Amino acid sequence: MAVKMKKILESLRVQPGKKIDLRNDYDPGCIGHFISKEDTEATTAAGIRLLAEQQDKLYAQNTYALLIILQAMDAAGKDSTIKHVMSGVNPQGVQVTSFKVPSAEELDHDYLRRCCVALPNRGNIGIFNRSYYEEVLVVRVHPEYLERQQLPPSLNDRHIWSRRFEEINNFEKYLTDNGIVVLKLFLNVSKEEQKKRFLVRVDEPDKNWKFSAADIHERTCWDGYMDAYEEMFNNTSTPYAPWYIIPADHKWFTRLAVVSAINETLDRLHLAFPEVTKEQKEALLVAKAEMERENAEAPGRKNKAVKKRGKKS
Amino acid sequence: MAVKMKKILESLRVQPGKKIDLRNDYDPGCIGHFISKEDTEATTAAGIRLLAEQQDKLYAQNTYALLIILQAMDAAGKDSTIKHVMSGVNPQGVQVTSFKVPSAEELDHDYLRRCCVALPNRGNIGIFNRSYYEEVLVVRVHPEYLERQQLPPSLNDRHIWSRRFEEINNFEKYLTDNGIVVLKLFLNVSKEEQKKRFLVRVDEPDKNWKFSAADIHERTCWDGYMDAYEEMFNNTSTPYAPWYIIPADHKWFTRLAVVSAINETLDRLHLAFPEVTKEQKEALLVAKAEMERENAEAPGRKNKAVKKRGKKS
Repeated sequence: MAVKMKKILESLRVQPGKKIDLRNDYDPGCIGHFISKEDTEATTAAGIRLLAEQQDKLYAQNTYALLIILQAMDAAGKDSTIKHVMSGVNPQGVQVTSFKVPSAEELDHDYLRRCCVALPNRGNIGIFNRSYYEEVLVVRVHPEYLERQQLPPSLNDRHIWSRRFEEINNFEKYLTDNGIVVLKLFLNVSKEEQKKRFLVRVDEPDKNWKFSAADIHERTCWDGYMDAYEEMFNNTSTPYAPWYIIPADHKWFTRLAVVSAINETLDRLHLAFPEVTKEQKEALLVAKAEMERENAEAPGRKNKAVKKRGKKS
Repeated sequence: MAVKMKKILESLRVQPGKKIDLRNDYDPGCIGHFISKEDTEATTAAGIRLLAEQQDKLYAQNTYALLIILQAMDAAGKDSTIKHVMSGVNPQGVQVTSFKVPSAEELDHDYLRRCCVALPNRGNIGIFNRSYYEEVLVVRVHPEYLERQQLPPSLNDRHIWSRRFEEINNFEKYLTDNGIVVLKLFLNVSKEEQKKRFLVRVDEPDKNWKFSAADIHERTCWDGYMDAYEEMFNNTSTPYAPWYIIPADHKWFTRLAVVSAINETLDRLHLAFPEVTKEQKEALLVAKAEMERENAEAPGRKNKAVKKRGKKS
């Protein structure tokens, strides 16, 4: 990866232990040293090809899994980022899970449970479109959602958010210790850009379906969300599972930054196709000789009409 | 879709109620009216683009799901078909499930259960790489596998295969009646072509990992498998869930036939982006006006530093 891109990623990573100011330290309109969409196209395409190659090795090696967590305000581009960055990767090795409002059955369990059952298998990339982080975001902005979680009253106190941060950090440490690498991406869209995208969704009939008036009303809580996000970054960006704050006002830059962050994470795993052992190789050669004898034993025998049954249709 | 391709698909579909002779009626080397890989490339690429568009609508409409079942002998190209045909489709709407040797926990349940829990959500395409059809294939060729299934002795009798055909047909009727469309594809490779591909896997170190000597030994059961497949086609190709026998000796033709079969199936659903109701549209316009007033109420107010907290890092 180019040194410049590495520096950009470094600047987007929330340094564990440092306190950030989300509104002032991170510009949603950042485009690095690039000047236009055209300027990034070749780099993004190369990144997607590299990702497909890395994923082939991840799958073959079957040792690590990669969990990518995507969080964002509405219209920041989560869906379109998944579509553009991950199309091209073999779907046999990728699972995307979208977490919506919890069902009654899900609310009858602890909050991590529905995410646990959706974790990627070894060798796979799992993408969480929203995640357990909603538990310290939407639930914090709308505390009435907490009431539906049936918590014991003594555990529903003012320390609940700091406990949840600790629980999440411990959970991600556990995943990392077991070979499930965690990469967390926040797509950082500005309130102005969100408005522009919402207006397009109102005006274009083909986009109406993924939109409701409630999404617009949620804008009134913008400041509450920014506060909740900031506190989340300051408490859950860890050395083993750092947060990246990805500028999201220009989708072409978002895609480049996302694919670069994924590739940098996979790079660190030094993925390679597994090598077979000497014993396995010998067994293969014996079996190969066996296959070659098939011909000698039945010269000219064709794979047809070995045994006739039924009638011709 | 071109008339010629429709005719090819028609000839590959196992007509419900007719008895086929797998070895004599279906040529694994068939390439239709095409003459080379180059001859199909543009058509296959157009098919994949169309599939991606159809899938967008399937997802937006959220009414139907498509279940694609892939069965084949080893090295027929199931994995590479999934990779080449489905890469390019938004992974958010596709789930691939590979069914391997059942675990002890899976064997403690009925045989359909592990497939039931992997069925695609509405709006999604689910691909089963192998499926419950293994229950009338590998289990039939190796009856000792049946012994592990803990069946009540009175139900482990000589009628078990015809009962399983009936159970599977009823299950697929149920799925179809509930909007889950079932498309079943058998990749039909010849024994000679399998040998060629196995030899490549022995000789190329990068391909050794997906291969073991046991795969080669399984060739000794080839005739048993062909008999089991033939009987399966003759009993489970139904008007609501037909089997297609896809020639698989030429991968480029396999891919074209597979993407064409999928598109033809989706075509029949007349997919379209959902239209919002008049009430929803009005609510959107009210919300739009609300957004537009934001500016008037706070002219020049920027989405920055609404509330300063924490320190600059």
